[in-house]
Amino acid sequence: MTKRIYFDNAATTPLDPEVLAAMMPYLTEHFGNPSSIYSYGRETRMGIENARKTVAKLLNAHPAEIFFTSGGTESSNTAINAAIADLGCKHIITSPIEHHATLHTVEHLQNAHNIKLSYLKILENGHVDLHHLEQILADSKEKCFVTLMHANNEIGNITDIEAVGNICKKFNAIFHSDTVQTVGHFPFNLRELPVHFITGAAHKFHGPKGVGMLYINENIKIHPFIQGGAQERNMRAGTENVYGIIGFAKALELATANYETNSTYIRSLKTYMMEQLKMHIPGIGFNGDTSNNSLYTVLNVSFPKTEKSEMLLFNLDIHNICASGGSACTSGADQGSHVIRAFNNNPNKVAVRFSFSKHNTKEEIDEVIQHLKTMI
Amino acid sequence: MTKRIYFDNAATTPLDPEVLAAMMPYLTEHFGNPSSIYSYGRETRMGIENARKTVAKLLNAHPAEIFFTSGGTESSNTAINAAIADLGCKHIITSPIEHHATLHTVEHLQNAHNIKLSYLKILENGHVDLHHLEQILADSKEKCFVTLMHANNEIGNITDIEAVGNICKKFNAIFHSDTVQTVGHFPFNLRELPVHFITGAAHKFHGPKGVGMLYINENIKIHPFIQGGAQERNMRAGTENVYGIIGFAKALELATANYETNSTYIRSLKTYMMEQLKMHIPGIGFNGDTSNNSLYTVLNVSFPKTEKSEMLLFNLDIHNICASGGSACTSGADQGSHVIRAFNNNPNKVAVRFSFSKHNTKEEIDEVIQHLKTMI
Ligand SMILES: Cc1ncc(COP(=O)(O)O)c(C=O)c1O
Ligand SMILES: Cc1ncc(COP(=O)(O)O)c(C=O)c1O
Repeated sequence: MTKRIYFDNAATTPLDPEVLAAMMPYLTEHFGNPSSIYSYGRETRMGIENARKTVAKLLNAHPAEIFFTSGGTESSNTAINAAIADLGCKHIITSPIEHHATLHTVEHLQNAHNIKLSYLKILENGHVDLHHLEQILADSKEKCFVTLMHANNEIGNITDIEAVGNICKKFNAIFHSDTVQTVGHFPFNLRELPVHFITGAAHKFHGPKGVGMLYINENIKIHPFIQGGAQERNMRAGTENVYGIIGFAKALELATANYETNSTYIRSLKTYMMEQLKMHIPGIGFNGDTSNNSLYTVLNVSFPKTEKSEMLLFNLDIHNICASGGSACTSGADQGSHVIRAFNNNPNKVAVRFSFSKHNTKEEIDEVIQHLKTMI
Repeated sequence: MTKRIYFDNAATTPLDPEVLAAMMPYLTEHFGNPSSIYSYGRETRMGIENARKTVAKLLNAHPAEIFFTSGGTESSNTAINAAIADLGCKHIITSPIEHHATLHTVEHLQNAHNIKLSYLKILENGHVDLHHLEQILADSKEKCFVTLMHANNEIGNITDIEAVGNICKKFNAIFHSDTVQTVGHFPFNLRELPVHFITGAAHKFHGPKGVGMLYINENIKIHPFIQGGAQERNMRAGTENVYGIIGFAKALELATANYETNSTYIRSLKTYMMEQLKMHIPGIGFNGDTSNNSLYTVLNVSFPKTEKSEMLLFNLDIHNICASGGSACTSGADQGSHVIRAFNNNPNKVAVRFSFSKHNTKEEIDEVIQHLKTMI
């Protein structure tokens, strides 16, 4: 098999062998339905509840605030729908650079339930304008729901969600943050963070696909989005994805234990790639904020548009280099990125996202730079 | 480890080692995001699309009619919500013995959207009254949505969904059938069956937990329930549970290939247990229809109520025998079964569901009968 260079870790990450090992007993002998009362069920129930305790402890939340779902998208759908249906919010404030899991959901609510929808201004460096947020909140006559992502999956920009939460508090608004790119990549202290909902997806930090998390602050009472059985303390119906849940907790445990080492290492890769690109590719630029207010995992590069650079992703793939033109779920489409368009509509640039994990090396970056030199 | 007798296969089944083997490559090297355009993504995309083709072929549907979800519950939620939100139905007709994935969803819609809700009469043998269905449809002034399960998970009764579908057709009603207990247990020919939606959950037929299927007839156009990325041809957003989907298809393939052998064998176990119970336990009865209009996997036994029989499930568990008092998702609760109550409200009986798989044996039944004799 040819060696591949996988620089698309913001789309998804390989499952850690240690995580798979933790899941295996639940893929084999521990198969009982967690809702059953006999021993086969009790051992899977215990597995789930221990996973919940682990996740709660790692994020400094209460176990009763942690709910497992099928992924980041379902978690965001749950929070956003509940803000309207259960919490009395009539005005949604978001930004044009959110993930589609947020944007399509709020657009749908706007149409179906006649909800007011406001988009925040995006600054030139890709950050949301928090003055604008404060202004809209101050002007709003209705109860507001603010949904702003912690880190942008395309350009890596990190929003100060503590600041957002404090602004929301001042105006009694409900605050949901899509933290899919940061849970498992940064420490969280939910007991201190002024946020009502956050989300996570295990496959973004070397956990399994098909499992996510929704944190619901203990002071918030909502109805389930998916209705049926009494699973997840009546908050998310359906037989639990037991091995997924076990995998989520194990992956978060490993990510937290190795945070210092991994983040320092991965950040050094990002810095190295920026340096090498500036040195070797004329006319190169970067989309978004490349300072510390950015994911250490994501580097969004702006190439001068030429006949060759328009074929860049394709040519990278030919050389077994995996990178992305936008978020994974739209990278098949040809419309370009709604994120880049929102703050930098330069038709003479081609954006490519490189995103890193602990498995990447400087040698891989050198190899990619060599290829890019010939491709541009 | 003590040997356990697992007679709760309607709650969940062990994952088949062959299914796990098919999933393993996708839990290890094939980890790419299926929405990515490079080769890592393409191989998982191909895995998913081949799984879809396999499932479609086995159920005699078009691949474009098969959508993967996180489970049976999500599938039913999707269909039921869409019937109201997208298909213009204003009157829901269901039965009191549906799974909670249906009942709680329709109750919620009734309250939130002012939808008319009618429950069909249940006959003494646990079957729904199809004359009543026809009557309600004939009397309804609004567009109707009929949701009736194919086989009941507690008593095993099978409804003639072809007959239901034909009645629905006559009155231009939309028909959803919860087929979670029959997909993987009976052959389907969806090109001939007059139904708009059916559902499936892999873990009910030796596939993985956390993955389900929704069939949407090609003539039906609905919006996604979970919104976000363009996955599942814009019908179900969220990064796909790739190994789950691979496992769903493999499990359905095995189930279909071995249908004759397994169903004959499992039916013989059910018949044997009925005979043995009648022979050895005085006052025994059965809930529901025990004829052929019943799942070969499920036997719901009615024990005379005594101090001892009220502790039956508990005492069975002590002897490492797994059985259930109702559906798994409510078996932790103490309110008894809404299904049994709907047609047979005899307070002097204790209901216990035994449900079988290909892994069970007559010897296990003999052992259970021995224990029951001492327990009653
Ligand atoms: C910021 C962000 N939010 C939400 C999601 C959706 O997560 P998932 O696809 O696991 O449902 C993703 C990734 O796809 C993401 O990057
Ligand atoms: C008839 C029926 N419908 C729906 C479900 C829900 O399926 P799941 O729990 O996999 O979401 C079940 C099983 O729990 C069932 O037996």
